[in-house]
This record gives sequence, structure tokens and C-alpha cells, in this order.
Amino acid sequence: MRYTSVSIEALVDEFAKLPGVGRKTAQRLAMHVLHEPRAEAEKLAGALLDVKDKVIHCSVCQNVTDLGIDPCPVCTSRGRDRSVICVVESPVDMLAFEKTGYYKGLYHVLHGVISPLDGIGPDDIKVRELLLRLSEPESPEVREIVLALNPNVEGETTALYLSKLLKPLGLLVTKIARGIPVGAELEFIDEATLSRAMEGRSAV
Amino acid sequence: MRYTSVSIEALVDEFAKLPGVGRKTAQRLAMHVLHEPRAEAEKLAGALLDVKDKVIHCSVCQNVTDLGIDPCPVCTSRGRDRSVICVVESPVDMLAFEKTGYYKGLYHVLHGVISPLDGIGPDDIKVRELLLRLSEPESPEVREIVLALNPNVEGETTALYLSKLLKPLGLLVTKIARGIPVGAELEFIDEATLSRAMEGRSAV
Repeated sequence: MRYTSVSIEALVDEFAKLPGVGRKTAQRLAMHVLHEPRAEAEKLAGALLDVKDKVIHCSVCQNVTDLGIDPCPVCTSRGRDRSVICVVESPVDMLAFEKTGYYKGLYHVLHGVISPLDGIGPDDIKVRELLLRLSEPESPEVREIVLALNPNVEGETTALYLSKLLKPLGLLVTKIARGIPVGAELEFIDEATLSRAMEGRSAV
Repeated sequence: MRYTSVSIEALVDEFAKLPGVGRKTAQRLAMHVLHEPRAEAEKLAGALLDVKDKVIHCSVCQNVTDLGIDPCPVCTSRGRDRSVICVVESPVDMLAFEKTGYYKGLYHVLHGVISPLDGIGPDDIKVRELLLRLSEPESPEVREIVLALNPNVEGETTALYLSKLLKPLGLLVTKIARGIPVGAELEFIDEATLSRAMEGRSAV
């Protein structure tokens, strides 16, 4: 026996499809929707469809942007250092860098990394778009490409692939430092990270 | 700096309004929606509005049901023991009893409990509807009202109030047993529960 309302049951089913949402949580969410004003449910429903209808990829950096706003605000911003492009795997990674407020250059979002095991090759991510962007006559200012990919096998593979492609173009290709996270205690850091930290040591 | 897409930002905001959903989770959910097929987002959006448009209260038991299905399936079921009504606070409590498969009677959903501190009196919950239902000429079969309210101050207050109202009607008013949960260890049970368990002891 389930709910006496088919509509509630349907909503619970839909909520339960979301990642990290179990059946109990889905029930709680559905009960919340049942008790909130219709306007709130409308806003969520509208936002869901808007994301599917209005979100596009910026033609320059491939990051998410809205219909009619292409290139995206970052690509058109005048306050950006146009000589550096930071290559990230996904829009959330770009967001993480933006939160720091430290990096002021441009971005390029790959929307994935090379992963032979999952059947994802260079053509399945936005590599071609990066090369195209670099070959455009109006972007001769780019001097450095920072590879900011996740420190796992797929990330390293993609970084290696990209560096081999980009170096012949006369660009400085760098990657973000691996090392001890700020606030961590040396005694609890894994061997691989410690080795990378030692390898990447710098003069003080 | 936030997302470069206003639509995604709006969806994150809406998700973050749901109970138990923080900003990080909302971001993960929004990214999931961005990558899933439009049909899935449509289904969730549709289910949200359906709940607001189609869910009504059953005119008999006040439980949730769909437009056009009134009385609800439980109230119209022929396999139910029509001599017992179990009074619960909310539809989820009713669902909890249905899951056991043990109880075969009818229900009455109060949609709240008396809570003077929150300004909720007997008129704000479905007490009147319960009395009306009992006075209907076609329901003379009801002999017992089981009060199945949560074991807290508000629940106990409501149970006391209802029992005073219902006993004069010549009905047997009972409440569900308080005691040791199945599988629990006596040593870790709180004093109040242990006292109740002792008080409610029965012959073996």
C-alpha cells in the first residue's frame, strides 16, 4: 500500500530519481511541496524547464550560459586577463576557481575528460573547440594555457594529451600545483601528495 | 561570482529552498537536471504542478487523494474493517501503519495536532470533520477510535482532548501502546519509555 494519492506518489517517484535522494527524503520533499503555496511549486517547475530550454554552451569557452547571452559574461568581460586560459573539466570547477577571486583569466570548459574505459575519447569533449578558439585571428593574445584538471588518472591523461597538442602552437602550457592543502597536517597526508609536494618545492 | 547562466542559478536557488537541501546539494541536483534528457525534467515539473492541482482531501477521512477520487480508495475499500477508525496526525503516519499490513480498519487524518504554543487549536485541525463523520447516519458501525498520535506533549494533549470528546458518544477510545521497540536493548531505553512499558504490562 502506498499513498492514497497517485499525484503524490508520482512526485515521490520523480524526486527519488535525483542523485542522492532516497525514498524517505523524496517523501519529505513531496510533503513539503504539498504544503507550500502553489507559486513555489510553479517556480521550481519553471526553473527546471528553463534550464532545459535556455541553457546553452558559450561558443567561445563552452561554459554554460543563457540563450541570447553568447559569448558568456566571462568571455565578454573587460576586466579579464585575455592572455591566460584555464582549462577545466566542468562548470562547477570553473565556479570553484571564481569563488577564490584569485584567478582573473579566461576559461575553457571541456565537459568531460578522456577516459578510454568509459569510451570517452578526445572527440567527445570540447578539445576541438579549444584548438579552434586558439586559431582564431582575434585571439593572438593567448600566451598561457593552465590545465586545471582533477588529480586522477583521467585528469592526468587528458592533461598529457592537451599539453602535447598545445605546446607545438608555441603556447606556455602549465598545470596547477599538487601539494599539501592549506590547513592540513603533514602527518596525515598520503605518500603520493607528499612526494608531489617535495617534487614541486620552491625557493623561499 | 556565481554561475555564468542565470537559469542554472535560478534552479539552484529553487532546489536550495527544499527542506534538507543545502547549496552544494542544490548545485549537484541542478547539474544533474542540466545533463538529463528534457523529458525527465518535464516529468518532475509536471509532477510538481499535479500535486498542487490535483491533490485534495478525502471528504470522509481527510487523507490526501486525487481530484475525482473522493472518497479515497481506503474509505471505499470493501476489505476494510469499518468498525475501527485510527486517528493520525498526517498522511505519512497513515502510510507507516499501512506498511505494516497489520491494521485493516479506516483512518482519520487530523493534519496537525493541538499546539497552544504555535497557536494551533482544535478548530485548526480536522476534529470537526471527525465528529461530523461519526454523526452521519450511514456510519453507525464505528465502535472504536484508536488514537495513534506521536508520543510528545502536543500528541498527548490532542489525544486527551479527543478522548474527552469521543467517550460521551459511547465509543471505545483506545490509544496505541507505548513500550519497548522491537529489537531494542533494555539497557539503552530511556526512563519514561521503561516506566510506560512497565505500566502497560500484560499477562503472558
